[in-house]
Amino acid sequence: MLSIDLNCDMGESFGNYILGQDEALMEYVSSVNIACGFHGGDPSVMRKTVAQAAKRNIAIGAHPGYPDLQGFGRREMKLSPDEVYDLILYQIGSLTAFVKAAGAMLFHVKPHGALYNTAAKDKTIAAAVASAVLDADPNLILVGLSGSYLISEGKAAGLKTASEVFSDRTYQDDGSLTPRSDPNALHESAEVTANQVLHMVKHQEVIAVSGKQVPVKADTVCIHGDGAHALSFAKAIVTILTQNNVSVKNP
Amino acid sequence: MLSIDLNCDMGESFGNYILGQDEALMEYVSSVNIACGFHGGDPSVMRKTVAQAAKRNIAIGAHPGYPDLQGFGRREMKLSPDEVYDLILYQIGSLTAFVKAAGAMLFHVKPHGALYNTAAKDKTIAAAVASAVLDADPNLILVGLSGSYLISEGKAAGLKTASEVFSDRTYQDDGSLTPRSDPNALHESAEVTANQVLHMVKHQEVIAVSGKQVPVKADTVCIHGDGAHALSFAKAIVTILTQNNVSVKNP
Amino acid sequence: MLSIDLNCDMGESFGNYILGQDEALMEYVSSVNIACGFHGGDPSVMRKTVAQAAKRNIAIGAHPGYPDLQGFGRREMKLSPDEVYDLILYQIGSLTAFVKAAGAMLFHVKPHGALYNTAAKDKTIAAAVASAVLDADPNLILVGLSGSYLISEGKAAGLKTASEVFSDRTYQDDGSLTPRSDPNALHESAEVTANQVLHMVKHQEVIAVSGKQVPVKADTVCIHGDGAHALSFAKAIVTILTQNNVSVKNP
Amino acid sequence: MLSIDLNCDMGESFGNYILGQDEALMEYVSSVNIACGFHGGDPSVMRKTVAQAAKRNIAIGAHPGYPDLQGFGRREMKLSPDEVYDLILYQIGSLTAFVKAAGAMLFHVKPHGALYNTAAKDKTIAAAVASAVLDADPNLILVGLSGSYLISEGKAAGLKTASEVFSDRTYQDDGSLTPRSDPNALHESAEVTANQVLHMVKHQEVIAVSGKQVPVKADTVCIHGDGAHALSFAKAIVTILTQNNVSVKNP
Repeated sequence: MLSIDLNCDMGESFGNYILGQDEALMEYVSSVNIACGFHGGDPSVMRKTVAQAAKRNIAIGAHPGYPDLQGFGRREMKLSPDEVYDLILYQIGSLTAFVKAAGAMLFHVKPHGALYNTAAKDKTIAAAVASAVLDADPNLILVGLSGSYLISEGKAAGLKTASEVFSDRTYQDDGSLTPRSDPNALHESAEVTANQVLHMVKHQEVIAVSGKQVPVKADTVCIHGDGAHALSFAKAIVTILTQNNVSVKNP
Repeated sequence: MLSIDLNCDMGESFGNYILGQDEALMEYVSSVNIACGFHGGDPSVMRKTVAQAAKRNIAIGAHPGYPDLQGFGRREMKLSPDEVYDLILYQIGSLTAFVKAAGAMLFHVKPHGALYNTAAKDKTIAAAVASAVLDADPNLILVGLSGSYLISEGKAAGLKTASEVFSDRTYQDDGSLTPRSDPNALHESAEVTANQVLHMVKHQEVIAVSGKQVPVKADTVCIHGDGAHALSFAKAIVTILTQNNVSVKNP
Repeated sequence: MLSIDLNCDMGESFGNYILGQDEALMEYVSSVNIACGFHGGDPSVMRKTVAQAAKRNIAIGAHPGYPDLQGFGRREMKLSPDEVYDLILYQIGSLTAFVKAAGAMLFHVKPHGALYNTAAKDKTIAAAVASAVLDADPNLILVGLSGSYLISEGKAAGLKTASEVFSDRTYQDDGSLTPRSDPNALHESAEVTANQVLHMVKHQEVIAVSGKQVPVKADTVCIHGDGAHALSFAKAIVTILTQNNVSVKNP
Repeated sequence: MLSIDLNCDMGESFGNYILGQDEALMEYVSSVNIACGFHGGDPSVMRKTVAQAAKRNIAIGAHPGYPDLQGFGRREMKLSPDEVYDLILYQIGSLTAFVKAAGAMLFHVKPHGALYNTAAKDKTIAAAVASAVLDADPNLILVGLSGSYLISEGKAAGLKTASEVFSDRTYQDDGSLTPRSDPNALHESAEVTANQVLHMVKHQEVIAVSGKQVPVKADTVCIHGDGAHALSFAKAIVTILTQNNVSVKNP
């Protein structure tokens, strides 16, 4: 029987500021990436989010980002590989404390936002991320963009990796994501989104904007947690997978 | 043979800002309390400070503080016990990652500044600190002001504790520290400071400002790391201890 | 014809985090207190909020708070009077730049959250706030809790002041607000809230929880901007005032 | 009689962290660029630094930077032109409040670190900076790298500008600064530094590393404020200028 992991970024609220619909979405996903206080999240949000995931036995991952709360970690910062190593290790450590206190264990690490994108394209930064994950715990799985340097550098470092694809992003002929600045970067329909996920899982390929069939490795599918239709999209994806005998579970 | 632990706060530099004389002072102390990025320190400073201490086999502790870099963690903040629990656990976790990556292990936790003082006097906050340390790792030693709630709540939680005394602070008849606002709060002479340490170690008492002999439990002695005469005081303390056959080592 | 000022805290969103329903509420109020980036708000939010208020000719005020984004400025911090003076002046200055660039002028200053409460009860802190407002611009109006040190110290400094009352908070026999920790601290009904406002405006008194009639000076009424029923309460207040020939306008 | 402006970055201490030798250097310079709390500085440091400069009648300028205290504003951040406009206007406003409260007036604006470098090379960012300065006060002088987009966009916006050259940096044949990564980026000798300043002032040219004479517009010369020999270099520069009848004063 086919299976796939569905992951979602969570725990990105901060103090008085609420973001996302974490608990509702936990009903649909098999793993969560929890913010660690740099681009979002704070110690109290981390504790509560970890507790919610641990209660449901969902795989818990760290979601480290740039130290830029105002930019939500989405603004590129020119950091040295050492600085990236240090902030990744710091954030993994901080989340690990909450995970251990909850009697659970940390399963994976997925960089956030601009750091995710930079580590996908910049081999040196990808190697710094991989090195920090390895030094934190060699059993951790490094989650990165399918086909990116994060995956190849993770493997080179001896880590297990998970290649990530996106449920609601459109793809180009070379397998890259359509830039967000393009009008057709995002699927707006739950049905199209759900079908793209099913197709990627069953055929390990994606239909690009041009109609071309593009091979893509899909170990885990990212579901967006904010936005108006996050819940309806998640429901549609799980429904179509279940109807086609694909189970949603963590590797 | 008598022995005593000498501890010093370290790793409080931040980015471009340098504070203290960490490496030089490591020659004299048997344990260090490393800032975790809230009142001072940053991920890169933490990595480097941990490496320096690990190389010398000095006992490494976490030194968590209030989230107030501008106030250096010295301004009281009215936080709930849950908020204190969360920020202590977060900071222990972040430092633990660097300690593990360096092949060392975390030995103790000592709260910083206003958090240390509040936890000494406020039983509920002391209990929150103890609970966070316990949940991080039940083998950690909780370091707190001798005779304070931090020590009693730490013991109540089942933790090992270390009662701290101060080398260069003067004491009142009830065993409390002379407030810093008083002109005679601090010893200004290396000789007087060194003699106070020796007396506390040998007799488990301190001579108060009034001349009264006050019993005090001394498991570890705090040496201040900043200020003009930090090094000369450290040297004087180690010299007098050595001359009197007291070894400087971590319990 | 009677008139009253209705004010609301605004511009408290931060980066990716949205808070409140600023534009909708601007239809009902005659003055706004705009956060200045310490407890909430950021430079971009400030520019946009100022532009929205300026377009409607609503009186713009600065809403400075403690430097504690995570606690939303609601956690007491023990700062010196000089530190309070400095952070108030800084925040007034930053907002003034946006107000001037929008072709408007700054009208008033109202401290936020824990700083508002501390300045109400602590004469020295109230004097520091008043001094900063005076040094920023002697024509600014200082808004503070009716009957508090903020008002008396503002007057003593030579400032115009505005005594603030609350639409949805209940009062004690001595004119103080029922603490938020009490179950009956807040009115839950739009009708009761609107009637309290009308009564305070017409009679310069409030009916305390006990039923006692308590005199209270009301120059401006605070309407809360977050929460589920912010808009319906605002609408009910404006409706009842209009029906009773009380105009909503800034002094 | 020839004259030149000597400027220095100041007020970059933060809370407990001291940086630079501000008061000592104020004896040598005719204008200061004061940090505004983003890359360095805090409200209390700003007040004190403004007071020191006002007392000496030195021209006071704002020195706004990226919101990156840990990186001291030296790490490039990918911000939109609107974000840059907003953070410049915010920081100018905050410093202006202290300057006005001290009875002085703001004279100029010089972006800091990575923002200075980006605005020099990126026309859109330079235009955003110029627009913010103009909206803050059209009488402000915009200080930027000689020959850069900051100068041309400042002029295009209708601002007065001041072209900046560097006392201790070496130059390339095209008039650009030798990158800091190069071993010969900095002059290490006070004499060479002082002679470079005199030559630039007298001949409006600089001798590049290759020996080539490169024309350069020099309205103001930057003196570095940190580092071991900041004071001796400043003294050497002022001495050689005085000996050659060049007065140090602000335009």
